[in-house]
Amino acid sequence: MMSVTSSFSDLIKFIRSETDHHLHKIEIPSEPEYVYSPIRYVLKGKGKRLRPVLVHLSGRGFDADPLDLMQAAMAVELLHNFTLIHDDIMDNDDTRHGQPAVHKKFGQDGAILAGDSMFTMAQLMIGQVGENTVPAFTAFNQAALAVCEGQALDLQFERDTSVTLDQYLDMVGKKTGALISVCAELGGILGRESDETLMGLRYYGTNLGKAFQIQDDMLELYSDEDKLGKSTHSDIQSDKQTILSILARNHDGRAEIQSEDPNEKQAALREFYETTGIRERALELCGEYVKKANDSLNVFNGEHKDNMEQFTSMVLNRKH
Amino acid sequence: MMSVTSSFSDLIKFIRSETDHHLHKIEIPSEPEYVYSPIRYVLKGKGKRLRPVLVHLSGRGFDADPLDLMQAAMAVELLHNFTLIHDDIMDNDDTRHGQPAVHKKFGQDGAILAGDSMFTMAQLMIGQVGENTVPAFTAFNQAALAVCEGQALDLQFERDTSVTLDQYLDMVGKKTGALISVCAELGGILGRESDETLMGLRYYGTNLGKAFQIQDDMLELYSDEDKLGKSTHSDIQSDKQTILSILARNHDGRAEIQSEDPNEKQAALREFYETTGIRERALELCGEYVKKANDSLNVFNGEHKDNMEQFTSMVLNRKH
Repeated sequence: MMSVTSSFSDLIKFIRSETDHHLHKIEIPSEPEYVYSPIRYVLKGKGKRLRPVLVHLSGRGFDADPLDLMQAAMAVELLHNFTLIHDDIMDNDDTRHGQPAVHKKFGQDGAILAGDSMFTMAQLMIGQVGENTVPAFTAFNQAALAVCEGQALDLQFERDTSVTLDQYLDMVGKKTGALISVCAELGGILGRESDETLMGLRYYGTNLGKAFQIQDDMLELYSDEDKLGKSTHSDIQSDKQTILSILARNHDGRAEIQSEDPNEKQAALREFYETTGIRERALELCGEYVKKANDSLNVFNGEHKDNMEQFTSMVLNRKH
Repeated sequence: MMSVTSSFSDLIKFIRSETDHHLHKIEIPSEPEYVYSPIRYVLKGKGKRLRPVLVHLSGRGFDADPLDLMQAAMAVELLHNFTLIHDDIMDNDDTRHGQPAVHKKFGQDGAILAGDSMFTMAQLMIGQVGENTVPAFTAFNQAALAVCEGQALDLQFERDTSVTLDQYLDMVGKKTGALISVCAELGGILGRESDETLMGLRYYGTNLGKAFQIQDDMLELYSDEDKLGKSTHSDIQSDKQTILSILARNHDGRAEIQSEDPNEKQAALREFYETTGIRERALELCGEYVKKANDSLNVFNGEHKDNMEQFTSMVLNRKH
């Protein structure tokens, strides 16, 4: 993979700090505490802001209005955080971005309500873009619905050992791909691009999203919890379908795991996937989706194409 | 109160049946079941469709496009049902419209996700009105956020015996009034009305909403469960603030309730509120808000004004 150049990394740093600045500037009423305290807590938390960065990078390639891009960038970040709040309840995840998950800190009712409110704030935000407002708003909500469908499939697939690789890829294309896809697409919508270009942008985002989720499944097993900022054992505990467990099904041998201790279970799984070449196969698959994503970047020109390729590398070089 | 004339009741019947027809025509994908089964279940349920009826009646007064009105009417009905699904989780209500609440039938995770998806479908629906699309979805989401705030206040107020009448009225103005308000307002927005008219429409809706909620609190105590279609004991069990419990605080005597049995508790409370005149005072207050609502109906002309007044009566003559 291409290394990240310094002018690119300066650009990303700038976009991130501007995005954080605007996120922190959102006026959150002090009352009712029950709904706004959790929202303040979430917005103060650290995030990589990958989705807002993608909105900006894509939109710069099409000369979209920077203020519109910032509205859209904040809307997708709020949408993303809303889905994390509700998913953490459903998945029973206790930690997020290195701090207690919202439902752990504020209780389940507060988390449901804060998620609903944050989603509504996201709607108000995307509704304020000045260019192509209705197409932006529609694409945004189609993505949100796909994310809900992906989460539903993920929950349905738990403990279902008949799930195929294709079903898994469909699920992650929705759960993770749809939001990344709409980030790229919004840049094109706000830049008044053709339907063909928008299709290319969605293709890029969906494939990058699949690569991202495959990698995420692997990081869950191969990272340390303090680096990941969230519980590393939750996939193992909940018997969620991951790229590794799916690929293992097509493999003759089985991991022999005697222990119920999560740490020992994790170590045994790491070893099994490593020695059987399953980890290698997952990495290859990830690489195939990265290639598909980058192949559709010819909708961009010159430095913008370079930036998008560097963005792809940056996303996939993350350690957490 | 004015009696409901037969041409008005024919009109309402027509709007209801058209609304039901369109709601049943919404294409709900078969998969993923986890999210779409609960949504199908909710849309099949009975409802009074008061909010869609109000959108239509208001919009007819301003010559709004009937197809736009139907889009908006369905959007508010989906929004309303989404809030019921999530509220029933938070309030631990087991019955809704005479059938098990969504979280009872499909589990909590399914209910969270079905609510999120239904809310997203509502957004896609309001985004499809052809006239004044951006003002329509902005008003729609401002109302949704107010409903979340109202629900937050309602939860915050539980077991807080210092809540004043003003705080209660602010809470119900948001929890119940905001959605009824935006129904009336959407008719004006889709009919390209002036800001002044929109303000009148909001004023009507908010005040009708307050009257409606005061009455709802009383129906909860004075109705039979089978007529109400939802659990009648949940307010009593959860120590929710109701107009009756708030007014009782300004009263010298206290209800002496020895029993823990919900039926006996209910009977004792009915008797107490009756003999102390608290029920009468609540009815008076309800009447004051009905008057305020009707006073702002001069934004309508002729038969449309009559229809709106008859709608007010119809809403408040309901027995459940």
